[in-house]
Amino acid sequence: MDENFKALEFKNGELVLIDQRVLPTRFEYFICKNSKDVAFAISDMVVRGAPAIGGCAGYGVYLAALEAKGDRSLFLEKCQMIRSSRPTAVNLMWAVDRMMKKAESCGYEPSKLLEEADLIVEEDIAMNHKMAEIGSSVIRKNDVILTHCNTGALATCGWGTALGIIKKAHYDGKNIHVYADETRPRFQGARLTAWELVKAGIPSTLIPDSAAATLIRDGKIDLVILGADRITAEGDVANKLGTFALSVICKQYGVPFYSAAPTSTIDFNMKKGKDIPIEQRSKDEVIRPGGVLVAPEEIDVYNPSFDVTPHQNITGIITEKGIIRPPFDLNIERIKNGESI
Amino acid sequence: MDENFKALEFKNGELVLIDQRVLPTRFEYFICKNSKDVAFAISDMVVRGAPAIGGCAGYGVYLAALEAKGDRSLFLEKCQMIRSSRPTAVNLMWAVDRMMKKAESCGYEPSKLLEEADLIVEEDIAMNHKMAEIGSSVIRKNDVILTHCNTGALATCGWGTALGIIKKAHYDGKNIHVYADETRPRFQGARLTAWELVKAGIPSTLIPDSAAATLIRDGKIDLVILGADRITAEGDVANKLGTFALSVICKQYGVPFYSAAPTSTIDFNMKKGKDIPIEQRSKDEVIRPGGVLVAPEEIDVYNPSFDVTPHQNITGIITEKGIIRPPFDLNIERIKNGESI
Repeated sequence: MDENFKALEFKNGELVLIDQRVLPTRFEYFICKNSKDVAFAISDMVVRGAPAIGGCAGYGVYLAALEAKGDRSLFLEKCQMIRSSRPTAVNLMWAVDRMMKKAESCGYEPSKLLEEADLIVEEDIAMNHKMAEIGSSVIRKNDVILTHCNTGALATCGWGTALGIIKKAHYDGKNIHVYADETRPRFQGARLTAWELVKAGIPSTLIPDSAAATLIRDGKIDLVILGADRITAEGDVANKLGTFALSVICKQYGVPFYSAAPTSTIDFNMKKGKDIPIEQRSKDEVIRPGGVLVAPEEIDVYNPSFDVTPHQNITGIITEKGIIRPPFDLNIERIKNGESI
Repeated sequence: MDENFKALEFKNGELVLIDQRVLPTRFEYFICKNSKDVAFAISDMVVRGAPAIGGCAGYGVYLAALEAKGDRSLFLEKCQMIRSSRPTAVNLMWAVDRMMKKAESCGYEPSKLLEEADLIVEEDIAMNHKMAEIGSSVIRKNDVILTHCNTGALATCGWGTALGIIKKAHYDGKNIHVYADETRPRFQGARLTAWELVKAGIPSTLIPDSAAATLIRDGKIDLVILGADRITAEGDVANKLGTFALSVICKQYGVPFYSAAPTSTIDFNMKKGKDIPIEQRSKDEVIRPGGVLVAPEEIDVYNPSFDVTPHQNITGIITEKGIIRPPFDLNIERIKNGESI
């Protein structure tokens, strides 16, 4: 029941990525030979999904250490390049910081750094399976589940967060049906989630993002589960553009709304969602869907990659340490302190 | 300040349409030589927008009368073909019925039928200008206005409904800014509204549909104005998919939400929005944006063309007879009875 593909794999000294920019019409690999390639792959969204980005960053820092050959300031410069390849997902910063700390503690020993990068990946996969187990409790037999963007094996180091929970429900025989938002402007839902759903044989339907609201109102959706790119100490969640609107509709019509993410997604140093930096992406993503121009080139475009859902709209945040429920600030504080929730 | 293009024009015995399927990358005309061409142009969305469809239907019925050469049952059959070319916009049925009534009263006299079809167009343009005047009262200086889909000169017989009101505010020097939803899956906002906004020189920004919610929440939008494809006797509004979600967000954050449409859009015989037939469109519109495949072909797709906004979420409906405000049922009844509102 595990996937027969890997979003990222380090082998023969190179980071091998499935090129998620061209899926599902083409299945191609993108090879990162050095730390600059890794930074490019993240910023150009060859690889995307907060946990997958974290996994790649680990190998990026390892490659940076090899390239720097003991030159500490060059190493830090390269780490900074990776760290700033995308601004919103906190797993990226978390992974770079973890690797840099390891570099200090192991005296920049390459083999130790490679081990640490491998560990990030292994831990992520293990956390995803743990989340799937924990998340089981929110899915009943015959549930119809709506998800947004891609949070599957492609968005993580393997298995998936929100989509991992959904897949487990399917494999457990819960007879679920999944509605997948296409997720404009990059179509991660159409390109990637639909691809994973078809591969896994899960009964599912792709919809334009705007179709979700009526389905929720009309009682066609039992619950929403989606991912997170950064979670604040008060439980506000930055996630793919479109998440916030879904949360408002769900709250209005009493439909449970869950975010699923490893605790490495929590930014304990940031209290409020309004402080999360929101990446602005290119005009071309909007005016050239599928590479074809559909708007006058002169038009101005506003294209934020993420939006922020206030914790008041969230039923629970499913993590590898349990489901965080209100009061979010207190329960997130407990996680920070290593206490059980 | 009027447009230098016409979405539809009847000349030399043919209905000449701007082919809205290929705008703005190509500007081409689509010629309807007979009633069948007109029905195809409507169903394939060569022309779209409830009032424009109504205008085309008038000429379609005229052509049907010519083709039927006095064969009444053939005429009725052709009228039915036009009437059923799209199911949701009531202006289509309204125009066909008006023309059929005229046919009966004038003894199928072609010149009289052509006059009637011309009259539908002239009246529509006049109503749009009237609506723009009436709608003036809801737009203040420096307002930032969000709109959805296309409701301009391309969606009507000329000038526009919601976009007509917006254009007038611009030409009146109100220093407005317009946010245009791209409007998946057919991109009427990106393709058509952005094109009209650029042509009119109105300061504006194109956004993915999902970006609207945060703009509304964050106080960046002063009001929303958009069109209607059918309005029920209780004031529920069927309009392009995505309208309902916007209305929920606007209500939640106290942003005025207006629909603009001629009173021919009101279906006095239908009380509740849930009874409006919602057209389901093709899977290809979703999985092949811009003609390029972005999803696995095996995936199921749900692609409703419209959704229904309950009157409780609507601030007012701007018509050529005044702004209908709550209680909608009573005020719509007044319009039905020819009373002022």
